[in-house]
Amino acid sequence: MFSKVLIANRGEIALRVLRACKELGIPTVAIHSTADANAMHVRLADESVCVGPPPARESYLNIPSIMAACEITGADAVHPGYGFLSENARFAQILTEHNVTFIGPSAHHIEIMGDKITAKRTVVELGIPAVPGSEGAVSTDADALATARNIGYPVLIKATAGGGGRGMKVARSEADLLVAWSTARSEAKAAFGNDSVYMEKYLGKPRHIEVQVLGDGQGNAVHLGVRDCSLQRRHQKVWEEAGGPTISPEERDSIGEICAAAMRKLKYSGAGTVEFLYEDGEFYFIEMNTRLQVEHPVTERITGIDIVYEQIRVASGEKLPMQQQDVQFYGHAIEVRINAEDPQTFAPSPGTITFYHPAGGVGVRVDSAVYQGYKIPPYYDSLIGKLIVHGRNRDECLQRLRRAIDEFVVDGVKTTLPLFQRLIKEPDILAGNYDIHWLEKFLAENKS
Amino acid sequence: MFSKVLIANRGEIALRVLRACKELGIPTVAIHSTADANAMHVRLADESVCVGPPPARESYLNIPSIMAACEITGADAVHPGYGFLSENARFAQILTEHNVTFIGPSAHHIEIMGDKITAKRTVVELGIPAVPGSEGAVSTDADALATARNIGYPVLIKATAGGGGRGMKVARSEADLLVAWSTARSEAKAAFGNDSVYMEKYLGKPRHIEVQVLGDGQGNAVHLGVRDCSLQRRHQKVWEEAGGPTISPEERDSIGEICAAAMRKLKYSGAGTVEFLYEDGEFYFIEMNTRLQVEHPVTERITGIDIVYEQIRVASGEKLPMQQQDVQFYGHAIEVRINAEDPQTFAPSPGTITFYHPAGGVGVRVDSAVYQGYKIPPYYDSLIGKLIVHGRNRDECLQRLRRAIDEFVVDGVKTTLPLFQRLIKEPDILAGNYDIHWLEKFLAENKS
Repeated sequence: MFSKVLIANRGEIALRVLRACKELGIPTVAIHSTADANAMHVRLADESVCVGPPPARESYLNIPSIMAACEITGADAVHPGYGFLSENARFAQILTEHNVTFIGPSAHHIEIMGDKITAKRTVVELGIPAVPGSEGAVSTDADALATARNIGYPVLIKATAGGGGRGMKVARSEADLLVAWSTARSEAKAAFGNDSVYMEKYLGKPRHIEVQVLGDGQGNAVHLGVRDCSLQRRHQKVWEEAGGPTISPEERDSIGEICAAAMRKLKYSGAGTVEFLYEDGEFYFIEMNTRLQVEHPVTERITGIDIVYEQIRVASGEKLPMQQQDVQFYGHAIEVRINAEDPQTFAPSPGTITFYHPAGGVGVRVDSAVYQGYKIPPYYDSLIGKLIVHGRNRDECLQRLRRAIDEFVVDGVKTTLPLFQRLIKEPDILAGNYDIHWLEKFLAENKS
Repeated sequence: MFSKVLIANRGEIALRVLRACKELGIPTVAIHSTADANAMHVRLADESVCVGPPPARESYLNIPSIMAACEITGADAVHPGYGFLSENARFAQILTEHNVTFIGPSAHHIEIMGDKITAKRTVVELGIPAVPGSEGAVSTDADALATARNIGYPVLIKATAGGGGRGMKVARSEADLLVAWSTARSEAKAAFGNDSVYMEKYLGKPRHIEVQVLGDGQGNAVHLGVRDCSLQRRHQKVWEEAGGPTISPEERDSIGEICAAAMRKLKYSGAGTVEFLYEDGEFYFIEMNTRLQVEHPVTERITGIDIVYEQIRVASGEKLPMQQQDVQFYGHAIEVRINAEDPQTFAPSPGTITFYHPAGGVGVRVDSAVYQGYKIPPYYDSLIGKLIVHGRNRDECLQRLRRAIDEFVVDGVKTTLPLFQRLIKEPDILAGNYDIHWLEKFLAENKS
């Protein structure tokens, strides 16, 4: 096991990792910017090193400073958290060259998954489903008809040179196809001077479903089920469920096993998330994140597995201590992200927290690095806490979440708690009836 | 379901019950003394009524005031929490006569279990094991020998008129018996003027093990496993485990089923706890508590069952929604009781909390009704919070508990947190190697 872990992050995730290290009995080093000298992860770490001023590129993204902090403190491993350097293959590579273990996958796997085209090609070869589409441009009527039949309607026709919705048409049936195809070509020609179009499966109301995987780099891997993260604003998740309200246990086990099998073949090491769009019972690969996710606690809650423990253990060379049949699922969990933002405009709201009282009691977990009197600096992500609630089933989880949101108090700054107070009353949310567009529509229609 | 529940308690348990009511969508009435006007349960309740000044007999124990609060607010049910009026059969009876539901068992069952002799006779008839002993006095050598053989060695010989250890002797084998018996008789004669002695099984190093039961008053009942509450100071539990470090799943299921079967025969309604001493694989009944226990959260954590929900549901006439095979156990949970007391002398330490930051993160539940700026009044029990921690197994639970204790901050008053920081390092605690005398011995030997 490692003799000292340096945590190359800040905020709640730095504290999350620190807690796991403390529980495993591993001394910790916090790094921090000059703006974060009073942060909780600094207060609770065994040692701390200031790595520079804000903004992040001068400190949390400053690889030479972080390497120096490793050297000064003798840390033999680095946990990158999420964001910042967590998916930076070069950082992983440099650490490895300096005999410091990067707690995460190999630089090679980070690199593969960091490039969309390579990632898709790789996972499709490993049997993971992606959005079906034409191989390159579709140039004849017959080709268009055959390709669309092969993909299945509705299909989306897109300009090869396109962007911004121009040269993009949906054909819902064969009757529409040739008109849509020729219109798309004409628009593409007009817009880009190039009438080349390609075709892929059209998803009208997809959900965002992701599979949590864990591998040990020795060919063992398991999946920890799925999360539904469809409630997003500007591609930022705001509410995540484990369980996944519309994914059956059979679907979960099936897509989970496909992902776990792929990770075994890849000899993937550490935690990872395979993200999908999901519609009409089918999964379509989006991307793979080669790190811990913000929303990992919902999975921890329904499986009982501490994902950060496992990251640390496999990075230290241990084998994965569980097989797929050891992973069991209990009930339903939901996480909401509490951001220091105006709940109407989503403008950041830094400042001093004048009163802080997290929710407590049965079924409630709070991951937060703030405290009463803490001054939220203006330089970083506005996430100040995560409220994670569990119930034996989704309804119980929702009623508990409503109660927990109501009793959570953060005074002195604006937060997104009032947004959740509104969402928890929405019939679509209560019914689990939402897709990735739902929240944007709700916000557009409910400006007040 | 009830239209309004009055919570006849204060502190963390009032908040616990309030949370369950909120989650079930039931409006709540808080009662409070003049000393508790700013208490959290008052702030969070839908309505509140002041029922008198401290001490408790003027307010929380004042039945006419509480009845008036029910009438004023139109509450149709009362949850008594623990302590105060929770095991007062007369209170349950008066509520029933006024068509207000007492959320708890019938007055009859409270009465039976409130009297030690009736309780023991009742449960023994229902098949629950009790400490074996002589039926009345043992008056001849032959009688003494036969009785001891029947009970099994070691046996304890006690003066019928006794108390304070006088006239009490232990015989560890047949060779000791007659000497011990005649010595006990002589001492009894000398001390009480009466040489009558009786005999029971001697337990040298028992553990306190209790079984959580739930019944619906309609003949359905289940057990929710056992808790080990052996770590006690002056008969007050300070640390409780679910799972029970030395109780095997087979023993748990066996004693649990005996208790559940007894509750079915009794047609017991609500939550209850059957308490035992446990030694060498045998359980010996002590008493039954006909109410929610302070330590119920550890059971909730390993079963996923919200005990307060079930109390409320069965009190409203619903059938128990589960059968024994629906009750599953996941991992291990430990609760420590954070008291506002000097951790050396255990003298109460009321006063204002100047900084409060509960532990958080994975596997941590905090039940507490205090907050930063709250003034702990001097009139009541010194319990200010409960820290409940879960892990996949006892070792994981302990390492998480150590971390959570370390990060829990209560400034401005003395608390028992430092005691737990000491206990969590003790080899006997880590090994689960303790009995009901362990903590007293530890405290006597480790005065600093």
